[in-house]
Amino acid sequence: MDDDEGACLMDTNPVLRLLAQRESANLETLFRLLRQPSISATGEGVQACAEMCKTLLEDTGFTAEVLPGPGQPVVYGEWVGDPDAFTLLIYGHYDVQPPDPVSLWHSPPFEPDVRDGRIYARGVADNKGQFVANILALHAYLKTHGRLPVNVKVVLEGEEEQASVNLAQFVREYRDKLRCDLAYTADGPQHASGKPTINLGVRGILTLELNAQGADRDNHSGNRGNIAPNPAWNLVHLLSSMKAPDGRILIEGFYDDVEPPSDTDEQLIAALPYDPTEAGASMGLPPLEFDKESFYRRLMFEPTLNICGFGSGYQGEGSKTIIPATATVKLDIRLVLDQDPDDIFEKVRRHIAEHAPHVRVTRLGDMQPSRTSAELPVCQAVIRAVEEAYGEAPIVTPSAGGSLPDYVWTKILGVPSIIVPYGNPDQANHSPNENMRLANFEHGMQAMVQVLSRLAETSAG
Amino acid sequence: MDDDEGACLMDTNPVLRLLAQRESANLETLFRLLRQPSISATGEGVQACAEMCKTLLEDTGFTAEVLPGPGQPVVYGEWVGDPDAFTLLIYGHYDVQPPDPVSLWHSPPFEPDVRDGRIYARGVADNKGQFVANILALHAYLKTHGRLPVNVKVVLEGEEEQASVNLAQFVREYRDKLRCDLAYTADGPQHASGKPTINLGVRGILTLELNAQGADRDNHSGNRGNIAPNPAWNLVHLLSSMKAPDGRILIEGFYDDVEPPSDTDEQLIAALPYDPTEAGASMGLPPLEFDKESFYRRLMFEPTLNICGFGSGYQGEGSKTIIPATATVKLDIRLVLDQDPDDIFEKVRRHIAEHAPHVRVTRLGDMQPSRTSAELPVCQAVIRAVEEAYGEAPIVTPSAGGSLPDYVWTKILGVPSIIVPYGNPDQANHSPNENMRLANFEHGMQAMVQVLSRLAETSAG
Repeated sequence: MDDDEGACLMDTNPVLRLLAQRESANLETLFRLLRQPSISATGEGVQACAEMCKTLLEDTGFTAEVLPGPGQPVVYGEWVGDPDAFTLLIYGHYDVQPPDPVSLWHSPPFEPDVRDGRIYARGVADNKGQFVANILALHAYLKTHGRLPVNVKVVLEGEEEQASVNLAQFVREYRDKLRCDLAYTADGPQHASGKPTINLGVRGILTLELNAQGADRDNHSGNRGNIAPNPAWNLVHLLSSMKAPDGRILIEGFYDDVEPPSDTDEQLIAALPYDPTEAGASMGLPPLEFDKESFYRRLMFEPTLNICGFGSGYQGEGSKTIIPATATVKLDIRLVLDQDPDDIFEKVRRHIAEHAPHVRVTRLGDMQPSRTSAELPVCQAVIRAVEEAYGEAPIVTPSAGGSLPDYVWTKILGVPSIIVPYGNPDQANHSPNENMRLANFEHGMQAMVQVLSRLAETSAG
Repeated sequence: MDDDEGACLMDTNPVLRLLAQRESANLETLFRLLRQPSISATGEGVQACAEMCKTLLEDTGFTAEVLPGPGQPVVYGEWVGDPDAFTLLIYGHYDVQPPDPVSLWHSPPFEPDVRDGRIYARGVADNKGQFVANILALHAYLKTHGRLPVNVKVVLEGEEEQASVNLAQFVREYRDKLRCDLAYTADGPQHASGKPTINLGVRGILTLELNAQGADRDNHSGNRGNIAPNPAWNLVHLLSSMKAPDGRILIEGFYDDVEPPSDTDEQLIAALPYDPTEAGASMGLPPLEFDKESFYRRLMFEPTLNICGFGSGYQGEGSKTIIPATATVKLDIRLVLDQDPDDIFEKVRRHIAEHAPHVRVTRLGDMQPSRTSAELPVCQAVIRAVEEAYGEAPIVTPSAGGSLPDYVWTKILGVPSIIVPYGNPDQANHSPNENMRLANFEHGMQAMVQVLSRLAETSAG
């Protein structure tokens, strides 16, 4: 029944027809944004990209502004027909990961290139292609009907790839302006099967840098070997005290607030598809050896302690026989309910103080974990809208493996939040040759059109 | 008595007078070589530097040639007055370490700069300033006397900073050409006290690279965290299985062939000076906590397992939350008698095969350890010559901490070998702002003049 009704809507919906007619113009709108680097790790192009996003919202028919803050600005736009009506808040981020190693890209990262039905560019999946799909859907809806069926607020931040360090403060500061009934995020990849996907939560994150210092200079490894301390060895021994070879994290109290999956969670997991060959291929690995329950449990209900980078001494060709002066490691810790970043940071800090008191710990950023109940009527409305747009029932997961600042909506604004990733599972976000299938970009626009309609019905009913 | 005699020689020796007169010209000869990069790790400028060394030897009055080989060429020169007379072989290396990190240099690494009585340049101490001092002494001796008092052969190689990977084969191939009675090397720093120094041996070395591969791409640490393997963690756990936090190397059989110091060694150590504050300062550290015996034992009689470099994932500003695809560590192992590089490599290989079978091990280079007896008459002659040149008795160590391909003379040619480092203890070789004191450069020239005379007497007597 739903499938037939969905197909029927797709054929007759004038908003979708307009989107189809404007395909070239819509792509060019996206490409303009992709050509503009916006690397929050270095700051390159971020301000210019914010201005472009503001213009895009204004061209859509929204009032828009670039709100400065302590870090990169937030672009805010709104279309409010009736202040008392249902309000949807759409979140996205216009900053991107650094493109390196650039040599591994098959086309330049900031020159969007369409090959084999995919758009290749840094940030196309994470997250420009996803929020632009939403804005283009709003644009087509307004062009067609002259108004939207619900109020819509758009928040585009520029520091998501820096763990959204200032977003929580922004949301606290603009709590009134941001008042809404549901937060909606299109980010991350769909399930590995390529089926439409809905995530009802995310893991949190805590990012750290550890610095070890030996002598005040690199020393000759022969003339000083066994005498001058080696900071790379110090970090190796510290790190191996933090995590066992079998993956268990050894920091005292680390698992204290980790909750096992509930019965409802287990049911949602049981309903998820799992193909170990497909899952492995999507991350550049042979077929995975995990069973389904173990795979999802590790990804959704277990925290991580990940080395993102380790740098010390000579890394060029051949050898350079030095005792390095310094060593640095970058870590990210994915947090699950009910782990708190402040508490985990304190536990890590204590561990380091005990095992390697000379190692300096710098906190780079954090986000709390977040969850929303699948049983809320607004969630059911979005699930139905996605099913209509894609023509098949979405996979609904209790949590994504990745992190988004979802908690700012659920814990600060106190509203439900739902995440509908539009990216293909092999989007290679954070990697060379990041890409988004053209079909995924189109489905994203269609999903937002259906979401607007279904939310209008739900709030009216 | 010796001191008086030495001072007397210094005043009346016409060779030394000529060296003093030619001070500016001699410095310019050195500077020409320092301006020519010769980085064996990358190959930059090495061939051009070899040609310059050949010209320098010819200008000195030697026959000279550039001998190609499988790697960088060897520059060979000789002055043979009487084929049956005593023959001294002087070894040096014209290749240098990479200059990075270049930003930490106070003057450009390949533009020699004289400040506060020191020459600053990459390679000035290691080793261009040292072998050029010897050649300039030969030049002055020949200019003054028209002949040398002993035959002299000069071997300058271009791969010492790559662990002299081809020198042993070269010495085997040219065994007849290289026939000699004593090998003499000026390389490395003097003792930390700044006193004249003689090393009767060296530690050996084995350099390795370990590569770990995870997925075929960097993966998102959230979407794949706890699923995709992390090669940086693999190396951390492998490395911590190879060496304990207290410094003990855990590879099975690693210490099998390590010999404790002999009674003679203990006596030589007991005679060495040791100032923990000075020693610490010379390597950029606070006063060392080792006592004298422990300091020298660690440096001369104990092997090392050193991390020279560790590279994985993102090392820029801010964070990039990836699971790196690869991780690489560069190691150097300093070997003491009677450790053999082949045997140690096999033990390391077995350890890795057992603990981390997927890690690839590449052998970059090696040198065997070497020792010569202090009691040989030629060694006594050199010790006396150095005392005369410097006006004080040299420190004589059983072994240097560093590595030189000394074994090619003692184990392949079967001749005694003696090492007289001309570099100041704070020469910062392998580091930014490598330097050689002008006084050390001059003492080096004077030492060679005295060595020629004393060896002539010893061989005649």
